[in-house]
Amino acid sequence: MSGEKILFKASALAERHGLELRGDGDHVVTGVATLANAGPGDLAFLANPRYRNQLADSRAGIVVMRDADAEGYEGTALVARDPYATFAKLSALFESKPTHAAGIDPSASIDPSAQVDPAASIGPFVSIGANTRIGADVRIGAGSVIGEDCLLGDGCELVARVTLVRRVRLGARVLIHPGAVLGADGFGIALDRPADGEPHWIKVPQLGGVVVGDDCEIGANTTIDRGALDDTVLEHDVRLDNQIQIGHNVRIGAHTAIAGCAAVAGSARIGRYCLIGGAAGVVGHIEICDRVTVTAMSLVTGSIREPGEYSSGTPLMENREWRRNAARFRHLDALARRVAAHEKKGKE
Amino acid sequence: MSGEKILFKASALAERHGLELRGDGDHVVTGVATLANAGPGDLAFLANPRYRNQLADSRAGIVVMRDADAEGYEGTALVARDPYATFAKLSALFESKPTHAAGIDPSASIDPSAQVDPAASIGPFVSIGANTRIGADVRIGAGSVIGEDCLLGDGCELVARVTLVRRVRLGARVLIHPGAVLGADGFGIALDRPADGEPHWIKVPQLGGVVVGDDCEIGANTTIDRGALDDTVLEHDVRLDNQIQIGHNVRIGAHTAIAGCAAVAGSARIGRYCLIGGAAGVVGHIEICDRVTVTAMSLVTGSIREPGEYSSGTPLMENREWRRNAARFRHLDALARRVAAHEKKGKE
Amino acid sequence: MSGEKILFKASALAERHGLELRGDGDHVVTGVATLANAGPGDLAFLANPRYRNQLADSRAGIVVMRDADAEGYEGTALVARDPYATFAKLSALFESKPTHAAGIDPSASIDPSAQVDPAASIGPFVSIGANTRIGADVRIGAGSVIGEDCLLGDGCELVARVTLVRRVRLGARVLIHPGAVLGADGFGIALDRPADGEPHWIKVPQLGGVVVGDDCEIGANTTIDRGALDDTVLEHDVRLDNQIQIGHNVRIGAHTAIAGCAAVAGSARIGRYCLIGGAAGVVGHIEICDRVTVTAMSLVTGSIREPGEYSSGTPLMENREWRRNAARFRHLDALARRVAAHEKKGKE
Repeated sequence: MSGEKILFKASALAERHGLELRGDGDHVVTGVATLANAGPGDLAFLANPRYRNQLADSRAGIVVMRDADAEGYEGTALVARDPYATFAKLSALFESKPTHAAGIDPSASIDPSAQVDPAASIGPFVSIGANTRIGADVRIGAGSVIGEDCLLGDGCELVARVTLVRRVRLGARVLIHPGAVLGADGFGIALDRPADGEPHWIKVPQLGGVVVGDDCEIGANTTIDRGALDDTVLEHDVRLDNQIQIGHNVRIGAHTAIAGCAAVAGSARIGRYCLIGGAAGVVGHIEICDRVTVTAMSLVTGSIREPGEYSSGTPLMENREWRRNAARFRHLDALARRVAAHEKKGKE
Repeated sequence: MSGEKILFKASALAERHGLELRGDGDHVVTGVATLANAGPGDLAFLANPRYRNQLADSRAGIVVMRDADAEGYEGTALVARDPYATFAKLSALFESKPTHAAGIDPSASIDPSAQVDPAASIGPFVSIGANTRIGADVRIGAGSVIGEDCLLGDGCELVARVTLVRRVRLGARVLIHPGAVLGADGFGIALDRPADGEPHWIKVPQLGGVVVGDDCEIGANTTIDRGALDDTVLEHDVRLDNQIQIGHNVRIGAHTAIAGCAAVAGSARIGRYCLIGGAAGVVGHIEICDRVTVTAMSLVTGSIREPGEYSSGTPLMENREWRRNAARFRHLDALARRVAAHEKKGKE
Repeated sequence: MSGEKILFKASALAERHGLELRGDGDHVVTGVATLANAGPGDLAFLANPRYRNQLADSRAGIVVMRDADAEGYEGTALVARDPYATFAKLSALFESKPTHAAGIDPSASIDPSAQVDPAASIGPFVSIGANTRIGADVRIGAGSVIGEDCLLGDGCELVARVTLVRRVRLGARVLIHPGAVLGADGFGIALDRPADGEPHWIKVPQLGGVVVGDDCEIGANTTIDRGALDDTVLEHDVRLDNQIQIGHNVRIGAHTAIAGCAAVAGSARIGRYCLIGGAAGVVGHIEICDRVTVTAMSLVTGSIREPGEYSSGTPLMENREWRRNAARFRHLDALARRVAAHEKKGKE
């Protein structure tokens, strides 16, 4: 946010990331933009083939692209095997993050037994509970509430208004967006049927914690409950989008990414390198092996033991047409029986 | 909340809104209620035909209704072409909103570079970041966090505990309910496959903002991510219910309304005057034209180019029956092939 | 969190809860754990048959189990008719909750007209609005916002960062987790079609409140809107998991439990002792009778008048297979007609 301009020469970007340069190595860019909106001072990228037709008309100063796309391109190009990942690294050079001075805002409320590293930055209206330890270079944004017995590894960032209820241990460099709640009670209730009086719920105490590995990211308003007895666990490099619900005692393997509004019920185990689509659901007490993709809004009702892509649901249709087909679904079993009967008759 | 009573004569209400009065123009009402619960001092309305049978027994002092429903009604009626919209306007007369004095609560934490209009009301434990501007008659409720480089147009209301993370620009009269988070990082990750070491995610910097048009309403715990490079945009008069997720670089047309728990993935574009049902999903990078209705819990997996109503899913059934039909869905393709084979045989 | 150890003898636990003891009545336990992780100092339980094979290898000091499972077990057992509910009660003995001294944190912002019981504990950065009353032994955690005209019965706990917007009345012992928002405006909008100018939404004032009965639990980031005219009502002992959306004027019967991410649209009525699965949906203005179970991610589109279990959706499949079947669903009505035609022809 300062007046200082960030600028890079094409040759410097190529050298820094080991990319092949084509065109003008002295071309200077001061920002990043989409192919459609970039000007001569911007770095852009082409990764998704559906945007290839925007390349010819783009005014971008430098474009990161694959070798195949660079054929015949007359502007300045940086050739990369994976343009999207390369662009991610390059665009980070242009990011101007607000700086946060180390230290504790005078309004913050810190329990005397909490330990806060002097190199941590604690924002206004933050409260930190008993026996909690905050590592170096941690940033806790305004309005966050950190309860008792938590541990935040070095370099964690809680953007603002994050809640860690109790017994939440974060590895290094965990990034948590506003409104996320980690360590709330899992949904454990048991129906008590007293000899006298009506059956009613009693709460099963939730005594476990939440353990989050290094380099995880947790989206806005996402919730991760603490375990009933053992912990709820995210291994390292797990990436959760917004509004996701992770039930108690779930375990999510390293490098798994989950899109917004998905829900994972208690004690489910998800493997490594899985991709769970938006608003998908996973029922409790099942296992999903490594490298499974679940498409948006699908429901996983049993364990998955083979890597691959899985789906449920029906296609979208014009409503009147859908009604006719959906009505037939009500009698699909009967229809199948009728077909079988007819086949049998045909054979006789 | 003062002791003062709000009261209106039937004739005054008719005149103020250009409605036809039938019955006693001097009848006075002091509040609003449902047909079922209204007393002689209440204004009620009849819009939904399913409640027509409540009219005869209602004790309401004045009822807003259509001409057709007023036939034979012996009480005092205000006849309107659209009773629901008319009632919305009339009942606003009886709303007693808590008043908020202009000024900044002494507990608030305001960056010295932020500009707050003197006619704005800033509640307790609010923090406002650098270079943010707050317009006239804005109300920011307790515990809200407004980050850097935000702009709040005149008359905006952030009820309480709202977060605008960074680079969020609100038009005039935008109403945001508690727990909403605008401007958090979009979910941009790229899998890096280093020559040495295991593949892992790297974060794609999210450099865009969020732009919200005039007269939008955003529900409790709804999240709207900021764009990756360009902005995420809501045009004017967009109405979002609670717990909705809007991904980065989505664009939503004017006058579109979205019901609770819906999710719109990144870079999707939704037209004007659309109605998106509760818990519906829209996948990324697609377009929905104007005046499209999507029914509850449907998933839009491709662009929609014709106005109309769209659905997916299957009907609810008793579980045992559903299991039988759902099991047949597993083999629906095979069933269709068998039918085709049989038909062919029949023709031979 | 103190250094004091909690310990119980097997005989004391048996006596306290009227359980049959088998084995060593003098055996002492100091904690609770799962069968798999328990050591000699832990109490464990066996309720779910799928974990029965863990019993033989468990090192647990005492195990709560059914009579049938205790046959031949050589360790110390407490025999219970319902081991899960019994364990819930026993494990509560070992829960070490952080203690909260009565009194108001000096940072809290309390309206002069609010009444706070001297035996309530009000945390840092809490704000309490006009005419609100807080009962005895209530705990309001950090960052919570309580608006005007609210009532919190004795023994309520708002863990942290809970918002009660306005006119929210809680019974006794209601437990609310972080990020929950009760009493936000319901989603009431009416399309106004002025003679001049484009159709646009007008807001229908939301004048009702929220009433929550005794012993309810409300999960993290769950939202319950206030009614339009009448109140939104949860009867006693209703249990809501995380990220649930309850629309305005919904009524939920006593002892009903709803799993995470479910959504209930406006004016729906749900009976007593219902179980609504995760991410399930209930459309507005319908009724569900007592003792109805809805499975995960099902959509209830009409009233349910018979107790039982209900479902919608299709099973999960490998994606390529699913595509083939889903494509056939598009033409299911035509398929059924073809089968009928063929059957008719066969009869001729």
